[in-house]
Amino acid sequence: MTKLKTVIIGASGYTGAELIRILLNHPQVEITALIANSNAGQKIEQLYPHLEPYGLPALQKIEEIDFSKIDVAFGCLPHTTSQETFKQLLADGKNQHLKIFDLSADFRLEDPANYQKWYEHEHIAQNLQPQAVYGLSEIHRDKIKKANLIACPGCYPTSALLPLIPLLQNNLILAEGIIIDSKSGTSGAGRSVKQQNLFCEVNASVKAYGIGKHRHIGEIEQELSKAAKTNIEIDFTPHLLPINRGIISTIYVKLQNGHTLADVKNCLNTKYEAEPFVQITEGEPAISDVASTNLCVITAKQGRTKDRIILVSVIDNLCKGASGQAVQNMNIVFGFDEKLGLNMTPIFP
Amino acid sequence: MTKLKTVIIGASGYTGAELIRILLNHPQVEITALIANSNAGQKIEQLYPHLEPYGLPALQKIEEIDFSKIDVAFGCLPHTTSQETFKQLLADGKNQHLKIFDLSADFRLEDPANYQKWYEHEHIAQNLQPQAVYGLSEIHRDKIKKANLIACPGCYPTSALLPLIPLLQNNLILAEGIIIDSKSGTSGAGRSVKQQNLFCEVNASVKAYGIGKHRHIGEIEQELSKAAKTNIEIDFTPHLLPINRGIISTIYVKLQNGHTLADVKNCLNTKYEAEPFVQITEGEPAISDVASTNLCVITAKQGRTKDRIILVSVIDNLCKGASGQAVQNMNIVFGFDEKLGLNMTPIFP
Amino acid sequence: MTKLKTVIIGASGYTGAELIRILLNHPQVEITALIANSNAGQKIEQLYPHLEPYGLPALQKIEEIDFSKIDVAFGCLPHTTSQETFKQLLADGKNQHLKIFDLSADFRLEDPANYQKWYEHEHIAQNLQPQAVYGLSEIHRDKIKKANLIACPGCYPTSALLPLIPLLQNNLILAEGIIIDSKSGTSGAGRSVKQQNLFCEVNASVKAYGIGKHRHIGEIEQELSKAAKTNIEIDFTPHLLPINRGIISTIYVKLQNGHTLADVKNCLNTKYEAEPFVQITEGEPAISDVASTNLCVITAKQGRTKDRIILVSVIDNLCKGASGQAVQNMNIVFGFDEKLGLNMTPIFP
Amino acid sequence: MTKLKTVIIGASGYTGAELIRILLNHPQVEITALIANSNAGQKIEQLYPHLEPYGLPALQKIEEIDFSKIDVAFGCLPHTTSQETFKQLLADGKNQHLKIFDLSADFRLEDPANYQKWYEHEHIAQNLQPQAVYGLSEIHRDKIKKANLIACPGCYPTSALLPLIPLLQNNLILAEGIIIDSKSGTSGAGRSVKQQNLFCEVNASVKAYGIGKHRHIGEIEQELSKAAKTNIEIDFTPHLLPINRGIISTIYVKLQNGHTLADVKNCLNTKYEAEPFVQITEGEPAISDVASTNLCVITAKQGRTKDRIILVSVIDNLCKGASGQAVQNMNIVFGFDEKLGLNMTPIFP
Repeated sequence: MTKLKTVIIGASGYTGAELIRILLNHPQVEITALIANSNAGQKIEQLYPHLEPYGLPALQKIEEIDFSKIDVAFGCLPHTTSQETFKQLLADGKNQHLKIFDLSADFRLEDPANYQKWYEHEHIAQNLQPQAVYGLSEIHRDKIKKANLIACPGCYPTSALLPLIPLLQNNLILAEGIIIDSKSGTSGAGRSVKQQNLFCEVNASVKAYGIGKHRHIGEIEQELSKAAKTNIEIDFTPHLLPINRGIISTIYVKLQNGHTLADVKNCLNTKYEAEPFVQITEGEPAISDVASTNLCVITAKQGRTKDRIILVSVIDNLCKGASGQAVQNMNIVFGFDEKLGLNMTPIFP
Repeated sequence: MTKLKTVIIGASGYTGAELIRILLNHPQVEITALIANSNAGQKIEQLYPHLEPYGLPALQKIEEIDFSKIDVAFGCLPHTTSQETFKQLLADGKNQHLKIFDLSADFRLEDPANYQKWYEHEHIAQNLQPQAVYGLSEIHRDKIKKANLIACPGCYPTSALLPLIPLLQNNLILAEGIIIDSKSGTSGAGRSVKQQNLFCEVNASVKAYGIGKHRHIGEIEQELSKAAKTNIEIDFTPHLLPINRGIISTIYVKLQNGHTLADVKNCLNTKYEAEPFVQITEGEPAISDVASTNLCVITAKQGRTKDRIILVSVIDNLCKGASGQAVQNMNIVFGFDEKLGLNMTPIFP
Repeated sequence: MTKLKTVIIGASGYTGAELIRILLNHPQVEITALIANSNAGQKIEQLYPHLEPYGLPALQKIEEIDFSKIDVAFGCLPHTTSQETFKQLLADGKNQHLKIFDLSADFRLEDPANYQKWYEHEHIAQNLQPQAVYGLSEIHRDKIKKANLIACPGCYPTSALLPLIPLLQNNLILAEGIIIDSKSGTSGAGRSVKQQNLFCEVNASVKAYGIGKHRHIGEIEQELSKAAKTNIEIDFTPHLLPINRGIISTIYVKLQNGHTLADVKNCLNTKYEAEPFVQITEGEPAISDVASTNLCVITAKQGRTKDRIILVSVIDNLCKGASGQAVQNMNIVFGFDEKLGLNMTPIFP
Repeated sequence: MTKLKTVIIGASGYTGAELIRILLNHPQVEITALIANSNAGQKIEQLYPHLEPYGLPALQKIEEIDFSKIDVAFGCLPHTTSQETFKQLLADGKNQHLKIFDLSADFRLEDPANYQKWYEHEHIAQNLQPQAVYGLSEIHRDKIKKANLIACPGCYPTSALLPLIPLLQNNLILAEGIIIDSKSGTSGAGRSVKQQNLFCEVNASVKAYGIGKHRHIGEIEQELSKAAKTNIEIDFTPHLLPINRGIISTIYVKLQNGHTLADVKNCLNTKYEAEPFVQITEGEPAISDVASTNLCVITAKQGRTKDRIILVSVIDNLCKGASGQAVQNMNIVFGFDEKLGLNMTPIFP
């Protein structure tokens, strides 16, 4: 079989580098082009010395690419830019053969008004939004299979939705009062050069940020509401950790009347027992259980107060929370074994 | 004025070393003896090379000390051992002049049955418990002043109680549904040599532990219940961070009907405006704002769901969460300026 | 082709866990048994939760294994224990079919007197020593191919020998005055539970240790002396870094009269251009260029003083410095593509 | 006594923040003004939230300050800017009363040609250079006492010069072949916002940089040459560590004929026994022995090869390597106890 021809649009950021790592190990694809408009002409190893040994193509401008010969485009651009780019790429019925896996937030919110609310500017590719599918692989696999434009979920949402959606779908927990307390490694902030992301600012400290108003609330609520078939609002607090990779989300829910922790565990086990990337454990998951992999490990524990259940989930924000899930979705779309390119064991220690 | 003669019982652990750091800088005390039974005869710098320049006394066994000449004893022993030690020290009406600042959990729970429940063995110094005062300085200053046995609070409890107690005392928040999600640096586990505390096990990861059953729940509930004048149960999840020092607690509460975020802020500002060690901020507190100091920084933010308030507090677990608060309590007992020895600026970066 | 049946003797340590990670991804082997005498009966995921998803065999005692059905044994035991174990395993002409890849120091020093000097006890398997081959893959490939007992090099030695050996073989640098200043991640100390390896002791600090007398000097000098065909003594200082994985060695040498930096670079490029795991770079190598891989990246730079050349090399101490090189050697012995199971891209960030 | 009126010029960087930390604890000075031209008008806590509790003056432009009322100016500006600023401040015989402690490199090199060589632009305040004194406190105390312009040493140079100068002055070691292998925390790079200083780029890695050509070579060689009374060239390799603070320098020297390690130790002990900030130890110094203090800890060990001595020194780059030494020099100039404001115990753990 001919290998799929893939391009990474926005290859200079961390999710781009992570895609390269994964695709280099994927037997059914080739990395045909790396696009990074402001670094075009440079070699990728000038940006990422660790990629020197792999003979990768030099960075190009998007206009240099003949997309008629490309099968797959991964979008690793900042929000807004992503809408703009794919709007142009697909304008006038062009490039309808292309399978797009967008890692930005630009196509995740089904309602453009919702997009405007959370991202504070108008959705500029509203014609494309109806065909976009929210790419949470284990939940929307059937829709992903048939889609051309997959909006890959955010990192925090992935960690929160995988444990919560089955419980809401099965009406085991209350739709009210869900609290998600998440802690993320600093790679979630990308490679953008800001004072707050300097080593000395992040190291030896942890802080909460965006309290009550982080943009990921939008997509978490959208997906939870669909699962629960009722409008859900949540409280969500992200924290910045002095580690490179990984998210741990500690989630506080209340049982529906008459249900127990055992029901919760059964539900999660049933939902995920055949899933290669979701592991339900009796232990206390640590970020090191999943770092550098596409895994999500989840546990459910009894809280202290009446009917309280505490869920803990861990993922690698750059892998299952971004580039890994994008490749998983590509595997779904092309009918590959879902584990292709993603069959890593955690690096520990 | 003659300097107070102090001893540190259990000087080999991290809280002992932190006490030494603080007391070396305290103008009204001298470190008369360092007690560490299993290391007796060694110099402290054999255990802590960074203490080599300070001419400290060698480590001794407790039976070598003539407590009739000692003014202050700091207890830095593991629980159980602390009860045993102070029971003997005060047996038969001995050493009634001694002011004891115990950093263990052994005298924090007023009800011995409660102690037995959380620590899983019988309280063995029940005769002493009634005279013990819970040493949360800003809350129980008046009682601390007159006490001989001050049970210094745990690190997690300090971070949770300072923001919550004034709000409950003033009936601004509901007594039900309080959730405390705490994250602590690894020094909170002490210097005990366990596999789980090895560098490679902790670094580059975060995990939740003791979910729903951590022992600090006991003292948090005791103090919250006293403040609210009703029985309070909480949900509390501690997490282990790959940093040496610091706790950040993110606390989810609901407003009482008719109250607002402004009321919460006013209450905290009023309660703490004259306090040298508690700072109410509009910003997003980071552990680096308090590391190496006796400060607690607190913020209150509006959550997303109705009536939700999110409190964030940060402390240094070894200082305000242990040794610093012990010295603050000593300053209270002896009528010193409360800042003596504790006037540090955070080390940043 | 039937997969090779492999056992890991001493599977509970970090090099054992790293071997598992690599072998799980190796298409030509199966992990037939995991041996850890003191943990026998436990599941490996009780020791390493991150290994839960992989359906690995439970830990066993060595006497439970029928080695007649095993093709490959990896030795991950402490020194002394390794000699004892393989002496028994091969006693009386038993198990001559077995290919042994020993990661301990026990068979690295060709002269038992040298072993006794550096390890301070008698070599207890002197009958086996003559058949042992020092497993520095790129240097001793031909001998490794034919050996049954491969003594895989230490981590520091691997980082030092790969840049130095070609330069000495080609007489480009002086044999006198070689200085190796190495810095290693803490996983090099293994999983042994010692106070000095606790998170808080290692974090936020760096220290030099074993100055002038680290045991790895023995094997470095042995191999350098063979390469130079003259007796070489070196100065070597290891340092402990607050990271999990990785070694960076900064090596100071003097050019032989008449030679230049260009000669040094040519020599290294020529020696390693066909090697998949050694990369000569013009940049300044960082540990992150190789972490989690079997790569060694080397650069050579002009120093400031006359004839001074500064070599910098980086490896992952657990992979190329231990388990990865052991698998590379297995690939050599069995005639596999040397990259099998080792085709990883660095995890960055 | 009236407190000295001090200003910090360039208060927005890390050395500025460290000066504030130290001066807040100094009984004989007040912080009269904080100058940061591009942040003028802001509060310091907008840049450094941890400084919120201290009631510091807002940031100002330099032209807002009446220097006739200022006693002490600390210069925390980038090189070039510092020359420009002090040239203007002292132009036309103005401000001759001012004591200037400059932390930049601009006045450290006595020969302007040498400055031009290492900093690649012309020295623009050559009229001031002759009055500048190199502020290595323990070595040049007598000259510092009488100076108005003290050029405080760089961080790497401080760590290298303190152990080496006495040995060269006493002719115990060879002037040739000195190798200084230094490793520094990331705060040494300042708060400048560069990609290479982002958390994820620095964390979990170490790299060598500026091999053979780092600018600090200039001042190290100048001071070593003066001590040895002969021209000295060195090899120096700096490395970047994933910690905030601290430098460890491992220094390789050769004994002069007839001398021994004991002579080296005697020399260092004699030179520094009365010095409050230099500690000679028999142990293996770690960065954690000095972090957050003005201490330098030094050890001397026998190397393996003939006549080799290995010196290891540790300092806090921001304190003894920058702001702490500046305050020490101020104490010298004003006849204060040299420990004023600098009497800290290391923060450990």
